Amino acid sequence: MFEIIRRDGLARIGKFTTNSGRTMETPALFPVINPKINTVPARELYDKFGFKSLITNSYIIKNTPELKEKAQAVGLHEMLDFPGIIMTDSGTFQSHMYGEVKLTNEEIIEFQKSIGTDIGTVLDIFTEPYWTKEQTAESIEVTLERTQKACEMKGEMMINGVAQGSIYTDLRESCARRMATMDIDVHPIGGVVPLMEQYRYAELVDVIMSSKKGLNPNRPVHLFGAGHPMILAFAALMGCDFFDSASYAKFARDERMMFVDGTFRLAEMESLDCNCPACRGHTLEELRKMEKGKKTKLIAEHNLYQITQELNLVRRYIREGRLWELAELRCRAHPALLEALRKLKDYQDVMEQYDPISRDGAIFYTGPETRNRPVFKRYLDRLGTRYVLPTDKVALFEDNHGKPYSRPYEQDFDKARRAGYTPIVVAPFGPVPAELDELYPLAQSLFPQIPDMETETESERLTYQFLSMMGVKEVILQDQIPDDGTEEFDANMLRAKAVARYQFGIEAADALFREPVELVTSKKTGKIRNVISDGEHVLSMRAGDGLYTLKLEGAKRITQAVPKPHMRVQVMDDAVPFAAQGRNVFAQFVTECDPEIRTMEEVIVTDKDDNPIATGRAFLVPFEIEQMKKGMAVKVRSGSSDE
Amino acid sequence: MFEIIRRDGLARIGKFTTNSGRTMETPALFPVINPKINTVPARELYDKFGFKSLITNSYIIKNTPELKEKAQAVGLHEMLDFPGIIMTDSGTFQSHMYGEVKLTNEEIIEFQKSIGTDIGTVLDIFTEPYWTKEQTAESIEVTLERTQKACEMKGEMMINGVAQGSIYTDLRESCARRMATMDIDVHPIGGVVPLMEQYRYAELVDVIMSSKKGLNPNRPVHLFGAGHPMILAFAALMGCDFFDSASYAKFARDERMMFVDGTFRLAEMESLDCNCPACRGHTLEELRKMEKGKKTKLIAEHNLYQITQELNLVRRYIREGRLWELAELRCRAHPALLEALRKLKDYQDVMEQYDPISRDGAIFYTGPETRNRPVFKRYLDRLGTRYVLPTDKVALFEDNHGKPYSRPYEQDFDKARRAGYTPIVVAPFGPVPAELDELYPLAQSLFPQIPDMETETESERLTYQFLSMMGVKEVILQDQIPDDGTEEFDANMLRAKAVARYQFGIEAADALFREPVELVTSKKTGKIRNVISDGEHVLSMRAGDGLYTLKLEGAKRITQAVPKPHMRVQVMDDAVPFAAQGRNVFAQFVTECDPEIRTMEEVIVTDKDDNPIATGRAFLVPFEIEQMKKGMAVKVRSGSSDE
Repeated sequence: MFEIIRRDGLARIGKFTTNSGRTMETPALFPVINPKINTVPARELYDKFGFKSLITNSYIIKNTPELKEKAQAVGLHEMLDFPGIIMTDSGTFQSHMYGEVKLTNEEIIEFQKSIGTDIGTVLDIFTEPYWTKEQTAESIEVTLERTQKACEMKGEMMINGVAQGSIYTDLRESCARRMATMDIDVHPIGGVVPLMEQYRYAELVDVIMSSKKGLNPNRPVHLFGAGHPMILAFAALMGCDFFDSASYAKFARDERMMFVDGTFRLAEMESLDCNCPACRGHTLEELRKMEKGKKTKLIAEHNLYQITQELNLVRRYIREGRLWELAELRCRAHPALLEALRKLKDYQDVMEQYDPISRDGAIFYTGPETRNRPVFKRYLDRLGTRYVLPTDKVALFEDNHGKPYSRPYEQDFDKARRAGYTPIVVAPFGPVPAELDELYPLAQSLFPQIPDMETETESERLTYQFLSMMGVKEVILQDQIPDDGTEEFDANMLRAKAVARYQFGIEAADALFREPVELVTSKKTGKIRNVISDGEHVLSMRAGDGLYTLKLEGAKRITQAVPKPHMRVQVMDDAVPFAAQGRNVFAQFVTECDPEIRTMEEVIVTDKDDNPIATGRAFLVPFEIEQMKKGMAVKVRSGSSDE
Repeated sequence: MFEIIRRDGLARIGKFTTNSGRTMETPALFPVINPKINTVPARELYDKFGFKSLITNSYIIKNTPELKEKAQAVGLHEMLDFPGIIMTDSGTFQSHMYGEVKLTNEEIIEFQKSIGTDIGTVLDIFTEPYWTKEQTAESIEVTLERTQKACEMKGEMMINGVAQGSIYTDLRESCARRMATMDIDVHPIGGVVPLMEQYRYAELVDVIMSSKKGLNPNRPVHLFGAGHPMILAFAALMGCDFFDSASYAKFARDERMMFVDGTFRLAEMESLDCNCPACRGHTLEELRKMEKGKKTKLIAEHNLYQITQELNLVRRYIREGRLWELAELRCRAHPALLEALRKLKDYQDVMEQYDPISRDGAIFYTGPETRNRPVFKRYLDRLGTRYVLPTDKVALFEDNHGKPYSRPYEQDFDKARRAGYTPIVVAPFGPVPAELDELYPLAQSLFPQIPDMETETESERLTYQFLSMMGVKEVILQDQIPDDGTEEFDANMLRAKAVARYQFGIEAADALFREPVELVTSKKTGKIRNVISDGEHVLSMRAGDGLYTLKLEGAKRITQAVPKPHMRVQVMDDAVPFAAQGRNVFAQFVTECDPEIRTMEEVIVTDKDDNPIATGRAFLVPFEIEQMKKGMAVKVRSGSSDE
């Protein structure tokens, strides 16, 4: 069972429980244990490094008589002395390395069951990057057939159903879709080691993202063979949950030390600059002169500490909603990784569907790639479809980028409005009407004052595209605003309505602002707090992200004015009384929902007759709600029986 | 005494020795010890963290009767129980914080001497960033006067002569120049704390770089008040050697933890993801609940470990010649730092003078800022002045960027040449004639295959500028090269001459290639190894960077053909026999040298009559040779008496 606890876009922190009742937190790495070479004992992995899972090879165990006998007699967990989750591989990787293996799928599944594996693996066919499309497609059929067989045989053992497809994105996606329908428990993405070995990270992005489109969001995704600390943040950003590493030990035997910025040969290092518990207290010279076995162990431990350190950091950044930043930084360890980050732009649409409507804290620019984050794409999409220009004359303002984007020129904005012009700021991510300048992500973004050429050029292009799309009649610059304007306006009301349109759509906003409208503002800051429409409290504005929370009265207005499924999460009759009492809505009770819902978005929980029974914020996105049989779909704020 | 051991551009690893015989390695940080609050005892700083230096405040000691008495009785080192180097501050920072201090410069200098300080500080005047230019200029005169007085009084104590100047670059430079002429021992750059507190890092770049232009390269430069791990790499890149930190303890009292990516409040952290010896084994919850004193100590230790870890890393990257990469990465911790990195482009000319002609290993692209590194500026400068087009027709090739830049299309190059066209590759850093494609930094640079807009645009602009400057008559693209060319050419000879021109200049290269010329090539790789001109071995080509080492016979040819000071380092009579025997040349024996010499460049050591007596590679640059009274200026390869 896999439960998502926290998320940041496609990335997630989850709790995975095996049928045997063992648990682990994801993202996590499975260190590879070669049962014949015990570089770091399994017990130490558990006790000293905190690894709650490992992977070992059932093919090697099966082909080593004494290991086979022992494993079948006492079970894998006792043989390895490891109380955590044990995953076994099937021999597929050996077939990639050495050609055919003498073994049937049924034999290896049966064997894995017999030794008490928690998660066994199908004998899938490793699709090499150089294969033709036909060859790949044929081999996928065999893999799927074998996976089906494994599902029938699995019993209490969980099953890895490996998604393959070489570098063909359509095959990757269709294979993933078919895997999603089978009774497997984990989704490894296989056949990617050669891409990583050859630094073909841009293609790896294609492979992961096209697979993710098809995979069941209810199951952890394992990027088979990925375990270098430098790639963990980026892979987690694309929604990978499991990783594994044999390199920690293999590199150690070759005297190669892993760091987040690359791998370095002991012989070529100039100093040992490591505070990890393994290295601390040792000089480079000492380490070089160490007896071979001791040295291998120390380097293996160092490599494991680098991995755990980075995984901890990845989890921290997911919790903080800042994983994009860590991934963008880590991708600068190698130009091929940076290229992969740029390639991810091709998947902006998919990423946007999972990107939260709001996050805590600032968005730090790290380079031109930052503009490609889905959060900025969404802003521009909504600006294009949900914004109404108050006047057809515009005054363009220079951005005070570099400082948090908050009301830079309030007086000048007002001067423009008096003269009949709508103030629009030319910000690094595009045009920002003054009415929207406090909402997430605009007010929370920090860009350097010296822009890169791409950001500068795009910002101007987007602004002029926007002006032309909006049918603007006249454009002036901020220093051309006449002093003697006499137009009347209510800046707060302009903001209140513009934010509502941006957040809920134009039709819904009109319903929420039925006259007479009164704005309650903060005595201290003057900022909007509540919107009272026709005597009823319909909206409250959050100070943190400048967005609204929707009151039940507001929800009623919207359901009356705007047809389904807009903003709706419709639940079965059984769930109605619970939601009405303010309890959260779980995925299995949802019958229908608006496909445009994003995580952290305000939603209206409705019964089958479209009566609003609660308001809250979405946690899962529609694709997940549809696919997942459990998990919180909506965090309900208040239900109709509460009031 | 300050000895430079390794360098990477302006950054250096040095050994600093006080008059009292205590030593330390730079770059280094002086933890601040408040003699009244002993967060981490000085002895622990030395024993446990390896700090060989600290800074404490003589003003506070002087104003605290019991401390004053004890310090004067037993001396600072015994009072603090610290065997390393102790620097004391003078009360200047207190005057910045709280206004005037009741103290004269003479009093505080005398007091610092009386307590056995290793490095004392003048009571300089802290120039605030908001001061007028007049106010700043006047206060600098006072600071200089006081510094002069301190030099007269100092005795065995070393003296910090603080360079000031607010944000006025001309005042910064002139103050630094005057400080350089005085008998001080360390060059602090003062008055920068407010800039760092306000994230005005771009202005900090102006302040550091304009100061560096004037400061004596023979003395360590101390960036007063800088100690956050996120800024150390960048400041070291600009040639700062000393840092200090009071924040490690101050932040600890406020429960703020330093990391290379920023400072985080314990209360706001989501997890403790730290492997440092202080944190390891503790959970976030444990740390939060810890008794206040214990918690403060633990966080202070954590902060110190982050600093030592980063300083180790900075030293490692200097040794590896890769500090630009680390600094570029670290500057992505905050948009204001990235802005500062971009600001550094204004100082490309100065940076280029210190940038080595060659480095080991690849140059990794980390973002559009990478193109601003001085190494690429130099390439373009030399291409413009030292390259001769073999034909006036050019065939442009697309770059296979992303892969190491090495002979991507050798056969197509030859086809172009047969057809009478010179092959030129449009690389990310500009045009690269095929003859030069193996030399540093071209063959060693790794750029992503998906370029950023700035790099792409600049690459094209530079190529067309080059073509027009070279008077090219016809330009075709690689797929337009006719198949039926019949021109004869010697690709190796074209390369051999082009590299010689690029490295030594056109005149010198002509002298080195006096006919008949024979090229000795490697049997294994076919690459050029030696150049034999008119029967004499004049040049050898290094495989690593594709550049030549100059033989003494080659040096003779150059001195005969090209007037002084081109490539010369002229030494006094006393030094001639030593250099002739192959011994290195030290700065104090140099009487004159070519101002165009860069570090790692091939140079000719000559006597006063311009006779070549040795060849070797420069270690110091001309400004340093002129200013420094010691240190190796040329690493001699072979002298005239050797042969």
